[in-house]
Amino acid sequence: MKSFKIGLIRVITMTDKTMMEMHGNQIMDYYPQLKVESRCIPDQYEGIHSPETKSIAIPKIIELAKQFNNKDALIISCADDPAVKELNDCLDIPVIGAGMSVAGIARYYGPVSGVLGITDYAPPAYEEMFGKDLINLGRPKGVNGTLDLMTEAGEEAVMELAQKLKEKGAMSISLACTGMSTIGITNKLAKLTGLPVIDPVLASGARCLYECLSRQI
Amino acid sequence: MKSFKIGLIRVITMTDKTMMEMHGNQIMDYYPQLKVESRCIPDQYEGIHSPETKSIAIPKIIELAKQFNNKDALIISCADDPAVKELNDCLDIPVIGAGMSVAGIARYYGPVSGVLGITDYAPPAYEEMFGKDLINLGRPKGVNGTLDLMTEAGEEAVMELAQKLKEKGAMSISLACTGMSTIGITNKLAKLTGLPVIDPVLASGARCLYECLSRQI
Repeated sequence: MKSFKIGLIRVITMTDKTMMEMHGNQIMDYYPQLKVESRCIPDQYEGIHSPETKSIAIPKIIELAKQFNNKDALIISCADDPAVKELNDCLDIPVIGAGMSVAGIARYYGPVSGVLGITDYAPPAYEEMFGKDLINLGRPKGVNGTLDLMTEAGEEAVMELAQKLKEKGAMSISLACTGMSTIGITNKLAKLTGLPVIDPVLASGARCLYECLSRQI
Repeated sequence: MKSFKIGLIRVITMTDKTMMEMHGNQIMDYYPQLKVESRCIPDQYEGIHSPETKSIAIPKIIELAKQFNNKDALIISCADDPAVKELNDCLDIPVIGAGMSVAGIARYYGPVSGVLGITDYAPPAYEEMFGKDLINLGRPKGVNGTLDLMTEAGEEAVMELAQKLKEKGAMSISLACTGMSTIGITNKLAKLTGLPVIDPVLASGARCLYECLSRQI
């Protein structure tokens, strides 16, 4: 079996190892060909939820990326794709952003998609992929960061927003926060709306496996 | 390991079992989670290389698709995506076309792509994905069908056309015939051009695995 060594960066500081490794473990469960080692950036307990918190995280991500050894690819587990371009420019291995992965997979289902994340702005990959055909209704009510998704009210607000995106004509729902993968809401949203809903962690793994294999054939 | 049963349809009649099963075997080699059973349509020894040959093939593909039992997904191993829409409308499992798979993956590398197949027209998925930003310089010199790719002259013509697509500004090369996967030219083209070159069989497998997994999470 062709298998690959992957470094995964969480853009939120987590002291609980199980939580910190959750996305990496999900990826290994979905794609056993990927062997994932997870790390998280320091001193950023609320993750990335604004242009400011993204700016602060970028140098930390670059620093952390350089500490991985002997990896075939890196995954930045954030829909905002922080430092992805910078790292692809300076490293020899592919660096996969969750945002670009979701947007690329969503485009398959048609040119109109609804973005569902934790910010009022859409992350850059979603804007770039769908342009004026991106439906953005802002963030779910009461959700100001990834940790808010872990509450019952947060989950309900996400469900409500998904339904609104469908009503506005979305052909797919592009999840725009990897915290959506943490709470396992993707399938609930797919059942609720009947639309393809793209899970950021599942999409990152798919893209990563493709990129690794494409260098071997 | 989550694994899936896949039916794969070759749109060219082949009496040699090894040749007929080649794409399926490539997919199983790349993605061991996919267990592929291959079949080919009858009485079409030159495959699909025109709107007419596509029309003739469509009812044969639909008929063959219905003969598979207990599959989690089907792959139509042709960049023209013949019968893909029709089958997705009438079957409960995902039906993956090589063309849509390539185009979706190529779009990740940017909005301008060069199409490289065996017809002067671009297959529908490539047109739909890239619109006016698709660079189409027609088919490689002297290539009139998938079997012509298996000659030295055919391979040289493909290499030459890839270089021209790059000169015209392609950010990626979207291969548009699964016969390109048969001759294993993808990596040679990537080395020659320095561009991402999307292999139709590798792309179909990636998309298929994603679609199967997305129904399970």
